[in-house]
Amino acid sequence: MTESAEPIPPRRLLMGPGPVDADPRVLRAMAMPLLGQFDPAFTAAMTETMALYRGVFQTANRWTFLVDGTARAGIEAVLVSVLEPGDRMLVPIFGRFGHLLCEIGRRVGATVDAIETEWGGVFLPEAIEDAIRRVRPKLLACVHGDTSTTMAQPLAEIGAICRRHDVLLYVDATATLGGVDLPVDAWSIDACTAGLQKCLSGPPGSAPLTLNDRLADRIARRRHIEQGLRDPDAPAGDGPVIASNYFDLAMLMEYWSDKRLNHHTEATTMLYAARECARIALAEGLDRRFARHRRTSEALVAGLAAMGLRVFGDAAHKMANVTGVHIPAGVDGEAVRHDLLTQFGIEIGTSFGPLHGKIWRIGTMGYTSTRECVAMCLVALDAVLRRRGYGAPPNAGLDAALAVYAGA
Amino acid sequence: MTESAEPIPPRRLLMGPGPVDADPRVLRAMAMPLLGQFDPAFTAAMTETMALYRGVFQTANRWTFLVDGTARAGIEAVLVSVLEPGDRMLVPIFGRFGHLLCEIGRRVGATVDAIETEWGGVFLPEAIEDAIRRVRPKLLACVHGDTSTTMAQPLAEIGAICRRHDVLLYVDATATLGGVDLPVDAWSIDACTAGLQKCLSGPPGSAPLTLNDRLADRIARRRHIEQGLRDPDAPAGDGPVIASNYFDLAMLMEYWSDKRLNHHTEATTMLYAARECARIALAEGLDRRFARHRRTSEALVAGLAAMGLRVFGDAAHKMANVTGVHIPAGVDGEAVRHDLLTQFGIEIGTSFGPLHGKIWRIGTMGYTSTRECVAMCLVALDAVLRRRGYGAPPNAGLDAALAVYAGA
Repeated sequence: MTESAEPIPPRRLLMGPGPVDADPRVLRAMAMPLLGQFDPAFTAAMTETMALYRGVFQTANRWTFLVDGTARAGIEAVLVSVLEPGDRMLVPIFGRFGHLLCEIGRRVGATVDAIETEWGGVFLPEAIEDAIRRVRPKLLACVHGDTSTTMAQPLAEIGAICRRHDVLLYVDATATLGGVDLPVDAWSIDACTAGLQKCLSGPPGSAPLTLNDRLADRIARRRHIEQGLRDPDAPAGDGPVIASNYFDLAMLMEYWSDKRLNHHTEATTMLYAARECARIALAEGLDRRFARHRRTSEALVAGLAAMGLRVFGDAAHKMANVTGVHIPAGVDGEAVRHDLLTQFGIEIGTSFGPLHGKIWRIGTMGYTSTRECVAMCLVALDAVLRRRGYGAPPNAGLDAALAVYAGA
Repeated sequence: MTESAEPIPPRRLLMGPGPVDADPRVLRAMAMPLLGQFDPAFTAAMTETMALYRGVFQTANRWTFLVDGTARAGIEAVLVSVLEPGDRMLVPIFGRFGHLLCEIGRRVGATVDAIETEWGGVFLPEAIEDAIRRVRPKLLACVHGDTSTTMAQPLAEIGAICRRHDVLLYVDATATLGGVDLPVDAWSIDACTAGLQKCLSGPPGSAPLTLNDRLADRIARRRHIEQGLRDPDAPAGDGPVIASNYFDLAMLMEYWSDKRLNHHTEATTMLYAARECARIALAEGLDRRFARHRRTSEALVAGLAAMGLRVFGDAAHKMANVTGVHIPAGVDGEAVRHDLLTQFGIEIGTSFGPLHGKIWRIGTMGYTSTRECVAMCLVALDAVLRRRGYGAPPNAGLDAALAVYAGA
């Protein structure tokens, strides 16, 4: 076989539900040479990454580190490490990713109860508290922003409710971390996980995670050291063994501690990426970053409305980084997505389950949460729709979006 | 917080047991822009990656793809998907990673039997067949090359033995794939997994895997589709559910099939890396590549011997990509490693378990399996040892190594 030309991805503007365009500084960081996992320069990079994610998660939690896998690896690591077979878990489902939490919970042997609301809505705190009273779960697992519906569940009061009922609170912030406010400590969240490929503008493949001591202590009690590493005379660990080696947070904590007890080989390049994502977010400042996401969302919504398009779901609880748009009657939604991709290189998202064929989803997050990206997306969508027979007043979308940025 | 300078890793030559230096073409591939996971350009890259790894694994297996995690993610994915609670697994242990296979097998609920040999040796096929007769396992799980001992288990006859006894054969080729011959189909291996950070000269964080149809059919029967994606009227799947969502190979096969049924979001950049690793290996040609690794190993061994150092373990079964060296009496092994790192930027490996403090491990794999790397390592080691009181004849190591390359 002779060596063929290096594969180059086609030019794209990624404005779907994620991954979105990586920040070029993150791409640059991933081209850096590797280091050995116990090289002092690399263990220093691990320690630095922990500190940076404490900033991003707004927490003082010692146990703030990465799981080597995509966002759902972080979810599974928390659930398999916290839940023992037969433990009760309660999940408020308001979209696809609530179902995923249930699915993973059942796989690890938990007894799962759920409350559900229609896609496009969220829960009142009282509804969650009522369900807690009824179910008496060990763990409440809740998605923050569910990209499948574009809704963000208000969480400010949920931590206090959980403490009142002695329930642990886990939040899946895959789609919101770094773009929507989520103060882990102030909101009394016991565990939170995320991914890089949404508001942090990195590639999928690393899952930042934070655990408070109340939860970490419970997990540490289930610690079992691998044979082949363990002193033969040392105890093997207490409590039911965690049913995964890869996702065993008790072992992962030892690996990320000063002990550096060998577990997996940390994914060097993904750590460089995760570190750079956090550096960029903190250099901008979280408050400025959240405000940028809100402003971009307002501009996009104003533009879509001016084009006569209807935004999906409960406007008061829409995520600032994903916007659902009803596909207008008579328009073939997939044909429009195809035109945007092939004529402009712009990707917007389709949808799942009950919303399939009914809405598009437009992502404005991290590096794509900007005036320029909104402007490009609106004029391209306007042009494609016009060619497909849906005519909005020319330039109306762009004018409305720019007016938001102009403060008009 | 103001933005600080971009972190740059210190200059290193990584000659430990892995990760080793990434090929610069792999680093370059990782700086490429992202693509959406259902972008035709990305699904084409997934399909291309499957075809490339068929080449690397020397297999026609349809189910040849990536698990998003480090090498042990691939191991756990196979074991949790194949083994049902109570199934018997047999593991020949000749180093640390045999223990790891046992550990993961027990975590997923299997009944694990092992045979053990002293670190530095391997098993005769007859010993493995005897154990199969006694244990009658469903699965034989065996490491190919165990970096903890630098030994490679001969596997050419093991597949035929397994077929005779109707046992499935899984091989962990993390440390050998792409550097040491491992013809998956010719050797009747049912499942094989690897990582990128050894002979493939990529970063840790992606686990290439191949399954033959005999195994894939068994796994597919345990398929359960996630709620939230499943047609409510469709059946939920047969057989005991796989106790992990992330590692459910039945679902991963659907994601990597033409159906592209959504599971996780594929780790875009790690896929670019894995693809480039395979492209480089196949462009060189596997036979040339294996010969290069053998030649480099011979040169390193000759050089070490000429320095009066003793190579560890059974020479007939030493891996071509990792070499164990006894630390000479009176020399502080960790001090030597420290000097090599701080004075030369060269990393060599320490060791685990029964070999801790007794041997160093020197990796020569992928991009570091070259004459230049061996030369640098030998002269630096020679210089450091001399300063630490161990005097070899000046230049003896280098001369002996270069003589091997000169064909003398």
